[in-house]
Amino acid sequence: MRLKRYNKTLDYSYTFGMYPTIELLRAKPDKVVQIITHSKLSDEEGSRIIDTLTAKHSIALECNDRLIHKLSPKESCYVVGVFNKYYPKINQENHVVLVNPTNSGNLGTIIRSMLAFNFNNLVIIRPAADIFHPDTIRASMGALFGINFELFDDINRYLEVFSIHNQYLFMTEGQDTLDGVSFSPPYSLVFGSEPSGLPPRYSELGNTVRIAQSGRVDSLNLAISASIVFHHLYSRYH
Amino acid sequence: MRLKRYNKTLDYSYTFGMYPTIELLRAKPDKVVQIITHSKLSDEEGSRIIDTLTAKHSIALECNDRLIHKLSPKESCYVVGVFNKYYPKINQENHVVLVNPTNSGNLGTIIRSMLAFNFNNLVIIRPAADIFHPDTIRASMGALFGINFELFDDINRYLEVFSIHNQYLFMTEGQDTLDGVSFSPPYSLVFGSEPSGLPPRYSELGNTVRIAQSGRVDSLNLAISASIVFHHLYSRYH
Repeated sequence: MRLKRYNKTLDYSYTFGMYPTIELLRAKPDKVVQIITHSKLSDEEGSRIIDTLTAKHSIALECNDRLIHKLSPKESCYVVGVFNKYYPKINQENHVVLVNPTNSGNLGTIIRSMLAFNFNNLVIIRPAADIFHPDTIRASMGALFGINFELFDDINRYLEVFSIHNQYLFMTEGQDTLDGVSFSPPYSLVFGSEPSGLPPRYSELGNTVRIAQSGRVDSLNLAISASIVFHHLYSRYH
Repeated sequence: MRLKRYNKTLDYSYTFGMYPTIELLRAKPDKVVQIITHSKLSDEEGSRIIDTLTAKHSIALECNDRLIHKLSPKESCYVVGVFNKYYPKINQENHVVLVNPTNSGNLGTIIRSMLAFNFNNLVIIRPAADIFHPDTIRASMGALFGINFELFDDINRYLEVFSIHNQYLFMTEGQDTLDGVSFSPPYSLVFGSEPSGLPPRYSELGNTVRIAQSGRVDSLNLAISASIVFHHLYSRYH
């Protein structure tokens, strides 16, 4: 298999760096095509884990500096995982719904926070940042491999399939503050895009909620807003 | 004045884009050297605000495509603010203390969240990401111009000067959870660096606090952790 630099039309993608690669091997060994290491790799503990996991799952392991240099934009990347893209299904638990997220870093950071606060199901309404982009995976620190996700072209299609979920829509003009809402499971936590949030028509879909704040900035960063909500629910209902 | 591409040794810096530039003009007009616009600028409302504020404060306003192209790494930047760096003092209110933050984006995002939740004083322990880097300012969405900040080379020097502040140290192995702590003002919320958090010896400086989480990821992103704490304090004690 002749590996190309990542672009979203490929049916495989990459983990760059030790941490996400180990998470890939732990959570999705059946999706791994091969692991590539660099001769400068000096992380002994990490190397031992990589050796153990590749041997256990009979995964090809190759030291190839030139190939890493070709695939990774960063000079200091010494481990690369190659894996086949996969499309898990979400289940009937609580959902996180991102409508048109545009930034890979935010998307990955949200996935990392989801796993930290036990949210396992992510819905993405397209168009959206590429969930398999190596930048998303890196920002997630490999947490992507621990969650379910599903892509929809239209929020209405999602609402048809998961009609029992109670919708909570996070909007700067939301009716209730986070502290004032009683969340009834199973629920969907719905967040809009970075530049513009949720369009006003979304307020018809369910309960609108705002995060109380000073009003001295226009809004919070998307990954920050989402993570504040996850933490609130985790610490209150756990 | 012949403007150079940004580097941290300059005694001036830049805001790139409409939003941070307007925040600069609103909050720190006396620091502004000049405003540069691009002929492709089509944001009418933004242009009107820029015109009004530069006229009000007698600030030079120049349309110069070539200069913007030279200064800004992004193609789509149509407004640049040039301002002199300044070093405000922090006051005796509550403090946010970042020990060796390494990432400009995180630093800016934390500053944006500080303003959203009414934290006005930031302490940075060096070495640290450059608070005046245009990437920091952009991630802050201009919130940098709304806060006080002060740089220290050593946490002990800071503790000498602000000895009445109660220290709360956020560590993954902290003794109390965020919900279980009663914060006594004036307080300092102390966060470590992205890769490694606070060194264990910091636990001697005050109360150690952790953010309750699932244990399924190693840690949260720094800007996420800090913002969760700010929101918790704002919504509980506001």
